Amino acid sequence: MKITAIDVSVVDVPYIAPVREVGWNNPHFVVVQVRADDGQVGLGEVWGAAKSDVAQTAETLLGANPLTMPLQTLTSPFQAALYDLAGQALGVPVWRLIGDQQREQVPVAYWSCHMPPEATAKEAEQAVAKGFRVHKLKARSADIVRQVELITKAAGPDYAILADPNTEFRHVATAVGLAHQLEPYNVECFEDPVLKHDLGWYRLLRQKLDIPQALHLSNPSDVLLAVRAEAVDRLNLGGNVASILASHAIAEAAQIPVWHQIAGLSLGIQAAFAVHVGCTLKQATLASDELPFIHENDLIGGALPAEEGHFRVPAGPGLGIELDEAALRHYQMD
Amino acid sequence: MKITAIDVSVVDVPYIAPVREVGWNNPHFVVVQVRADDGQVGLGEVWGAAKSDVAQTAETLLGANPLTMPLQTLTSPFQAALYDLAGQALGVPVWRLIGDQQREQVPVAYWSCHMPPEATAKEAEQAVAKGFRVHKLKARSADIVRQVELITKAAGPDYAILADPNTEFRHVATAVGLAHQLEPYNVECFEDPVLKHDLGWYRLLRQKLDIPQALHLSNPSDVLLAVRAEAVDRLNLGGNVASILASHAIAEAAQIPVWHQIAGLSLGIQAAFAVHVGCTLKQATLASDELPFIHENDLIGGALPAEEGHFRVPAGPGLGIELDEAALRHYQMD
Repeated sequence: MKITAIDVSVVDVPYIAPVREVGWNNPHFVVVQVRADDGQVGLGEVWGAAKSDVAQTAETLLGANPLTMPLQTLTSPFQAALYDLAGQALGVPVWRLIGDQQREQVPVAYWSCHMPPEATAKEAEQAVAKGFRVHKLKARSADIVRQVELITKAAGPDYAILADPNTEFRHVATAVGLAHQLEPYNVECFEDPVLKHDLGWYRLLRQKLDIPQALHLSNPSDVLLAVRAEAVDRLNLGGNVASILASHAIAEAAQIPVWHQIAGLSLGIQAAFAVHVGCTLKQATLASDELPFIHENDLIGGALPAEEGHFRVPAGPGLGIELDEAALRHYQMD
Repeated sequence: MKITAIDVSVVDVPYIAPVREVGWNNPHFVVVQVRADDGQVGLGEVWGAAKSDVAQTAETLLGANPLTMPLQTLTSPFQAALYDLAGQALGVPVWRLIGDQQREQVPVAYWSCHMPPEATAKEAEQAVAKGFRVHKLKARSADIVRQVELITKAAGPDYAILADPNTEFRHVATAVGLAHQLEPYNVECFEDPVLKHDLGWYRLLRQKLDIPQALHLSNPSDVLLAVRAEAVDRLNLGGNVASILASHAIAEAAQIPVWHQIAGLSLGIQAAFAVHVGCTLKQATLASDELPFIHENDLIGGALPAEEGHFRVPAGPGLGIELDEAALRHYQMD
């Protein structure tokens, strides 16, 4: 198997209305179609990369054989695309090339960017009706308590809230003060609540609070340091396959539950890849952050719906999805 | 692909003369040939297991499809055999189903059981002539200094000695006393020198000695504890694929070099499997303990020679080796 051509397209797919309305920055995605001499096409996507950079990397891959390449250390958009090609060439789903399948459905959280508490509550009401069980919330110290109060009112006390301040609580004292006000509610975790320069701050939060503390990390050495510092109850793991597998192994040895954000902000291609990776992670029992549903189109024809708070692992071969070429053309910018 | 039959054979293959002559206990091996409906045969071996137990496990695998099974957590002899079948079915070498290939040749140490220093030195002389660079030595406190002195005389000062007392030095003071006598020689590592009940003893040895300290571990949680205790400079990793990959990931995050003993005492089948696993371990830069050359026959027709202290990764598909049926019959006990 040999790579013969790579098509690179830039698309502008708008967010769903509630996210669009608060003016959150909508990125462009670069989609690649990696073509092989056996007629197979591997799909990949990435946001935040320049088309010219992606095209330049694409040049270096022409003539390569994904079956003999080091796939684990590739990065987006080519990691998904080359695993997709390799899986198709062998007739097996991508997960088979990554590890053992631990589950056929990967749990996923609903997600809101920071928006007015009333708007968030409306989102939560719809999310719980669709079967989501966890709300990943971009939390800010000014209104987190009101957010959680209104979400709970709208979605009920069983709907769990995972508060992600992106370190905006900054200091331990602020996080502790807010946590005490949040005690009556179903806040299942703080992710990156305070500044991350000192793991001792997270260790201290774990000593003071009953809400579990999580760090969002993508470097296995950082995961090891967090474990050694007794700084985390949970981990949100990002990165490529090599770093995800290694970080997960450390978490498993330390008996720390994890969730994953491999795709995160994504359309359907990278989300499908994330589901293949995630289903191999024994310790990934928590709701993942894979968010194709926050854009109005996933470019794969809705082939990866989040049903009852879960994605079903596509049956393969490869990623097990197909590009919606009409949608690609519709949203294409170039 | 479906498993249709499994042949189970017990073989008694004598050691090479120098090992045989000191009366070291020669175990029987159980060899399995796992047959699939596509005509492929997967090979596996194990020592220290009863034929009846292996046959009983074999029964449970009839009808299974290796391509959809959790391969990483299988154990010998079936882990190698099912990876072999899966690789053959897909037309790829086993390493492709485990990870990325980091090297085409896997380094290996020569090895001696505990024998008189003069006999060990004779072994070392032959080993260095064959290109081995490291001698893994079953060290004992009574004669380790004499052993090392005579090995160095026979094989030269560049030939490295990896002393494995199997905890027989017992106490820190004994290990320290011997280490000081060994300072003039090329002793590259102590493996499991003292009792392993307290990682603090290993931490203390690292503080007192310049010889690197290693632990032989197969449970990833134990590897994590050793790292947290700052107890090791190096690790010898054993276990099945799941535990090896996880242990290796922790070692890599901690920047600790490792070697592997996946096959250890083995004939050629399990050694070939070890080479496929080992070539995916980025951190496994040290000479491995895979020892098909200490038996007078490897049952694979000499297809995995240790040349210049390295095994070449078989080119596959599957394990990339074939059973020598005549040799199997020659050594078969039942």
